[in-house]
Amino acid sequence: MCEGWIADRMHLIDASGIRKVFDLATNMTDPINLSIGQPHFDTPQPIKDALNQAVADGKNAYSQTQGIAPLIDVIQSDVDKSYGHVDRKVFISSGTSGALMLSLLTLLNPGDEAIVFDPYFVMYKHLTAVTGGKVVLVDTYPDFRIDVNKVREKITDRTKVILFNSPANPTGAVASRNEVRALAELALEQDIALISDEIYRSFCYDDEFQSPAQWNDQTIVIDGFSKSHSMTGHRLGFVHGPTDIMQQMIKLQQFTFVCAPHPVQWAGLSAWSYDISDRVDEYRMKRDFVQTELSADFEIAGGEGAFYLFVKSPWGTGTEFVKAAIENNLLLIPGNVFSEQDTHFRISYAAEEETLRKGINVLKKLARSGPNDNWWTVKTESWG
Amino acid sequence: MCEGWIADRMHLIDASGIRKVFDLATNMTDPINLSIGQPHFDTPQPIKDALNQAVADGKNAYSQTQGIAPLIDVIQSDVDKSYGHVDRKVFISSGTSGALMLSLLTLLNPGDEAIVFDPYFVMYKHLTAVTGGKVVLVDTYPDFRIDVNKVREKITDRTKVILFNSPANPTGAVASRNEVRALAELALEQDIALISDEIYRSFCYDDEFQSPAQWNDQTIVIDGFSKSHSMTGHRLGFVHGPTDIMQQMIKLQQFTFVCAPHPVQWAGLSAWSYDISDRVDEYRMKRDFVQTELSADFEIAGGEGAFYLFVKSPWGTGTEFVKAAIENNLLLIPGNVFSEQDTHFRISYAAEEETLRKGINVLKKLARSGPNDNWWTVKTESWG
Repeated sequence: MCEGWIADRMHLIDASGIRKVFDLATNMTDPINLSIGQPHFDTPQPIKDALNQAVADGKNAYSQTQGIAPLIDVIQSDVDKSYGHVDRKVFISSGTSGALMLSLLTLLNPGDEAIVFDPYFVMYKHLTAVTGGKVVLVDTYPDFRIDVNKVREKITDRTKVILFNSPANPTGAVASRNEVRALAELALEQDIALISDEIYRSFCYDDEFQSPAQWNDQTIVIDGFSKSHSMTGHRLGFVHGPTDIMQQMIKLQQFTFVCAPHPVQWAGLSAWSYDISDRVDEYRMKRDFVQTELSADFEIAGGEGAFYLFVKSPWGTGTEFVKAAIENNLLLIPGNVFSEQDTHFRISYAAEEETLRKGINVLKKLARSGPNDNWWTVKTESWG
Repeated sequence: MCEGWIADRMHLIDASGIRKVFDLATNMTDPINLSIGQPHFDTPQPIKDALNQAVADGKNAYSQTQGIAPLIDVIQSDVDKSYGHVDRKVFISSGTSGALMLSLLTLLNPGDEAIVFDPYFVMYKHLTAVTGGKVVLVDTYPDFRIDVNKVREKITDRTKVILFNSPANPTGAVASRNEVRALAELALEQDIALISDEIYRSFCYDDEFQSPAQWNDQTIVIDGFSKSHSMTGHRLGFVHGPTDIMQQMIKLQQFTFVCAPHPVQWAGLSAWSYDISDRVDEYRMKRDFVQTELSADFEIAGGEGAFYLFVKSPWGTGTEFVKAAIENNLLLIPGNVFSEQDTHFRISYAAEEETLRKGINVLKKLARSGPNDNWWTVKTESWG
């Protein structure tokens, strides 16, 4: 009888797309896996050592809700140097996902609107649903650029939040200085909260990273150590923005996450001074390699950052193409997991070179062979 | 201008009571601290070793949303042995607070009612507010027993959840077998979700712990390693209940907490087989000691478990008495932080014996001297 207990908001969260992919993956033996949304490196040794030292030193009880002072201080100092805002406070969160949840619960009343760029990071859509808010999409196909006029058209008197992510998941697109500036100034002009998810900020391969906080001192910046320092399993992020908003988010953290994992925060202190430029260089080379290899057979926009390429399916829908790839032991994510349209698929190139080579071979073969109607009819039945 | 951005739900969360106490504590130098809601032991060495090993072994990336299979398996096996329910599934959460948030967001629609026993763990009230739900209090003063008839009187057609906590924070009360059974059967009869917060289950000093899951196979049990294994800073909990509800909670975890900290989950595997009976014995002795010492001057009910005593103020309100204690360098928590009434204060005896002795001396002195009108007039002004 407990099925009837489920609250309405839960029915708005549909995780079935990505689950289907992972269900299929479970049945694959040793797949060529280009689906992973995290670095393929392990956490650097000095960060592991700092974590172990913190545990040994007894940093195992609750920390302050807002995080340990030494970590806040080093981040605050760098944030102040970058932006020089009078009112910009840092606190430590349980990953960027945790920070996203806190920010949306803090800002969105039921019925309020959040502008999200399509394709989007899936969590934006689901977390907005949790708050009772409404996602308003701005289409960025086919080039994934940020057109501020399209954003302006979507603004209503219920628009409370713009969720911005550059470098972006799933497209790898890095917004230009002019795009970011125009968006930042629009949000300021319209008194809309601009949430800038900067989790991939370290991974910009062609131009420098641009934060909207440069032009909008009320930007809520969400960042973390997961992707830059291979700490996805450690749940460590941070946030900076206007004090009033940060205080509300910290209040909510007290009653939900309580604090980011305490010993991990001390590891974060080590991570903050750890140079990851060799890793960024390696991902740049991987990006160049995959992009070059695929360019003859596939249409690819974006890809200036993060470690994703969002590739247009050469035939069929994104889902159909990914099904064919899985049949050939290659695991990708269909674009409709991140989008209202089903025309693309996501490649993560956070993988070993050998894996990338194998994946590229399958992709080229599939693009050139086209859909095989015979097996196709059979397989689509089991996909639902 | 961003003050206007704050969502309505945030104004329902008032954390000012406890903050005032901690603000005062900040100005105390070397206080006699009986306010701490966590064990005074450090994490046991074998658990620390397991955590370090997991980090060294590269368990640093995301785990599965529901947690690592080996930890789920050992807990599931013990849960199955205890209850033998056909439909009871375990998953790993980011602490019990994380699990509480997931459960309330999964179950409560705006306007739905959650029955909470007063005095209560503060988070119940605030998390219910976050969901738009309404807290309906059942008064348990003066003896903190669970009277199922009082619960029945509060049930309406909007009652969706009963939040139950035994051993309880802040009272230390452990509900008897009969009380728990009656509550479990009432929830089943009325088709109300019973959430049993069992974070203090290991700390029962007089009688055996009783879970309502013994009599209600739809009970949602929330538990964790924080208090039993001194891992409050590690953020590791677990949940078990009907599969349909667990699936919804896991779906929500995917988009909020993502997963419990991964290496910590491996430490949890070590913790699950670590015997904490010597610690429980030590806390039983501390409970006996403090209770005996205070019995002549104070009225104390509850206290059969956890590591708290909820003591009636011998004069003035709970807040007034705590202010006098702070003036004497003793830090306690006033009862109104956990209650609609301001008649008690909470002592945590998770402290060294020397600290307990000092605290007891101050408490006895204050009880016997009564309020001092002179300093009182001065001090209350700064309390607000």
